[in-house]
This record gives sequence, C-alpha cells and structure tokens, in this order.
Amino acid sequence: MHGIVLFAHGARDPEWARPFEAIRDRIRASRPECPIELAYLELMEPTLEKAIATIVANGAAAITVFPLFMAQGGHLKQDLPKILDILRAQHPRVPISLEAPVGEVPELLDAIAGWVVGRVD
Amino acid sequence: MHGIVLFAHGARDPEWARPFEAIRDRIRASRPECPIELAYLELMEPTLEKAIATIVANGAAAITVFPLFMAQGGHLKQDLPKILDILRAQHPRVPISLEAPVGEVPELLDAIAGWVVGRVD
Repeated sequence: MHGIVLFAHGARDPEWARPFEAIRDRIRASRPECPIELAYLELMEPTLEKAIATIVANGAAAITVFPLFMAQGGHLKQDLPKILDILRAQHPRVPISLEAPVGEVPELLDAIAGWVVGRVD
Repeated sequence: MHGIVLFAHGARDPEWARPFEAIRDRIRASRPECPIELAYLELMEPTLEKAIATIVANGAAAITVFPLFMAQGGHLKQDLPKILDILRAQHPRVPISLEAPVGEVPELLDAIAGWVVGRVD
C-alpha cells in the first residue's frame, strides 16, 4: 500500500489550502486504497513530519512526497532534503521518495500552456 | 492582437524562473502572433508594470494576466488588484483582464491529480 503526501508551502489564509484539498480529493476518489495526506512547510498544519507519521501509522509500505510548488526555490532545494533526511531516519522501514515539483513536469507545463492558449483564443 | 502576461511570485535563485520560461516558450510556439511577457511580484524582473508597458508598446489591443500561482493568498487577493488598478489607469485604452490562478482551474487540478495517480500506479 503506497502512501501519498502532497506538500505545499502554507499561508495565513485558510482558503489558500483549497486547491490542495481539491487535488487530494480527486486522488482519493481515484485511489481510495492509498493513504493520502496534505502537509505544509509553514503557517499551516500538519507538518511533513506529522503527515508522514500518520501515513506510516496507517500501514503504508512506501511513501511518495509530491511538492505542489510551481517552481523550485530554496524551500525545495535546501529545506526539504534536510527535513526528508530526518524523517527517513525516523522511519527506516518505509522508503520515502520525492517527486519533482509541478513546474518540472513536462505534461503539466503542457497543460498550463494549453489552458492559457485556450483562454485567449 | 491579444497580449499575454504570465505573472509569478519571483525568487532569489535565477533557476526558479525556469518553469515559467518553459510555459512562455510553449505558448509562444503555439501563438506566435500574441505578444507574451513574464512578470514577477518581487525579487525578479520585469515587474508587472514593465511587462504591461512592453506589451502595450507592441500594439496589443487587450491584455490578459495569468497568475501562475498554485493558490491564492494575500499576494493575489490584496496586492495584485491594487497593482492592476494603477496599470489600468496608466493604459486606459487597453483592457487588462485577470484570470484565475492555476489552483482554481478545474482542468489543471485534474491534470495534477492525474499526474500523481500515474506516478504511484
């Protein structure tokens, strides 16, 4: 059973989380057998540490973290690898892998560009 | 001739801009007749003001601003409308419209969720 963490930046405004909740709900509807949690770098809960602990407690054999960031800055390049090193040491039996951010996935760049083109046609 | 502005947050790391440049290049390849510019809220150039001025100078009859943000926080809810009010006053003959951010577009939420599901299959 594969666990999924959707990792976002976080913000003061609770409504900011809505798109991430909508993505989580779509994935849950498509893969109800996969434990899935949102996690935030700052300003919102749960933290990545708590989300991973929840998924491990739910019995996941492996976990993939998807950074729902448009682009890769200091948060993803420096902060996230350090956090993941600590979490891997905490959960040595559950492999935790990290995916590319949204803005490094060619099919998602295609989708965003296609949306823009469709709106100005 | 419709002008397009892709509006992103900006960051200290120049590589951060890569996904936005990739989206711009895809749109340009598909609609070479549309003037298109990237613009940043902070830390990178050009500003929205400069990007809009460039597109107006290129003869666009109307401009659409696409906020390439995953979610809508204070930057988009408070800062951007104020900036746009000033720019509309500066360019009264060129209508400037504002699109939803990436995370409020159902087809893009579908695409992101589909990517996640495909990666854990």
